[in-house]
Amino acid sequence: MSEKPLILVTNDDGITAPGIRALIDVMQLLGDVVVVAPDSPQSGTGHAITINSTLYINKISADGAAIPEYSCSGTPVDCVKLAVNEIIKRKPDLCVSGVNHGSNSSINVIYSGTMSAAVEAGIEGIPAIGFSLADYDWAADFDAVKPFIKSITQQVIANGLPDGVVLNVNFPKLKHKDIKGIRVCRQAKAIWMEKFDKRKTPQGKDYYWLTGEFVNQDNGDDTDEWALDNGYVSLVPVQFDLTAHHAIQQLNTWQLNEKN
Amino acid sequence: MSEKPLILVTNDDGITAPGIRALIDVMQLLGDVVVVAPDSPQSGTGHAITINSTLYINKISADGAAIPEYSCSGTPVDCVKLAVNEIIKRKPDLCVSGVNHGSNSSINVIYSGTMSAAVEAGIEGIPAIGFSLADYDWAADFDAVKPFIKSITQQVIANGLPDGVVLNVNFPKLKHKDIKGIRVCRQAKAIWMEKFDKRKTPQGKDYYWLTGEFVNQDNGDDTDEWALDNGYVSLVPVQFDLTAHHAIQQLNTWQLNEKN
Repeated sequence: MSEKPLILVTNDDGITAPGIRALIDVMQLLGDVVVVAPDSPQSGTGHAITINSTLYINKISADGAAIPEYSCSGTPVDCVKLAVNEIIKRKPDLCVSGVNHGSNSSINVIYSGTMSAAVEAGIEGIPAIGFSLADYDWAADFDAVKPFIKSITQQVIANGLPDGVVLNVNFPKLKHKDIKGIRVCRQAKAIWMEKFDKRKTPQGKDYYWLTGEFVNQDNGDDTDEWALDNGYVSLVPVQFDLTAHHAIQQLNTWQLNEKN
Repeated sequence: MSEKPLILVTNDDGITAPGIRALIDVMQLLGDVVVVAPDSPQSGTGHAITINSTLYINKISADGAAIPEYSCSGTPVDCVKLAVNEIIKRKPDLCVSGVNHGSNSSINVIYSGTMSAAVEAGIEGIPAIGFSLADYDWAADFDAVKPFIKSITQQVIANGLPDGVVLNVNFPKLKHKDIKGIRVCRQAKAIWMEKFDKRKTPQGKDYYWLTGEFVNQDNGDDTDEWALDNGYVSLVPVQFDLTAHHAIQQLNTWQLNEKN
């Protein structure tokens, strides 16, 4: 029996994306790897799960291959659930997701399939990290960030993670030598200003493409956006207890139980 | 010009669901209502957005009808974005989502399309509430909860909501007279224990249905699960800054910048 950690690798760009290939390369140095990832791009799926449709699993590596790889018809969250329950049939020691083609910093964490896979693993009690590179190019330079992926993952394997916390790691689009280091950050306050691109079908019916502009509303130098803008890798601890604990006292002053 | 608030109503069960009809009934008492909701059920879509596909809007109420209603081909989050940018072309004064057929308490908040619509509105600076009834029956008794929907919504209109906070309201499956009142709560710690239902297609290929059992891991009497189990309406303030602020100090003790 191997004593190396069992590492589940997934993503949201699909199992053939260069980003997940880079992640697999690094994880092979650190443990036994199983890949379970979507068979098609799933960007922007958030924490979607498939409950009104069926799910399929295809083993895509040859039997006896060094790394077992499975493509799934569902979302990144489905992939984690299927991996744990139907494929490896145990909790892996670690789940890593990505490397995403494009940033998942600040509010993007909430739309991100990459991060939702990591959060799902966290909910199930598995230490988890999502990795994203601020470069949408399919030919992005993932080699530049591999040493950081390795060192962060080693720290998680060595230290574990606080209960109820997963990591959201984003890399700036820079050469390795130009990256200044890693900063632990908070999520910047930011929004997408939508601008729908309205078009007509050949039959004359209106339809829309979602587009938009990312607007950072946060000047703090302790945020992920600041880190990325200033040449650092951002590392944000993310929680899935969404309770706004600070608001409970205020809401308890409301007259909620008087008019029923 | 009306001085009544403009209220956007959406959901994730689809625009024809009885739950959204009940919500519209109540909102008509409180403001001017616009309905923008998915044209098909979207349960479990989480915070998904549609970026690799096109979106359609259909006006489904007659011109001049008391309430303008639009069905959209996308997710609940898409509906909020389309409503604000392409349909009403302003921020509504309030966004309400639901009434969901089934509970969105505890960890369900993260998988819920109903709550993701409310969170999206919150990100855009719109006060927002998600309502859910712990009864999956299409013929659930929404009349029992209408007075609570009205009183909570009136409080939000009167008081506003803290910055960065939306409300997750869940109703127990009880007769109105048996509901004890409203409690402000935190999200209970809970998980879904998945059990995939494995079947074979007529052609002999394996496929899976996601099923599972909800397991509450939290005994606190300040949780939403406790409130619902004890005959109360649960009201949880939900935030979309996912930063685990308490973990930042601990992560800063890691040797993150030594081996690159």
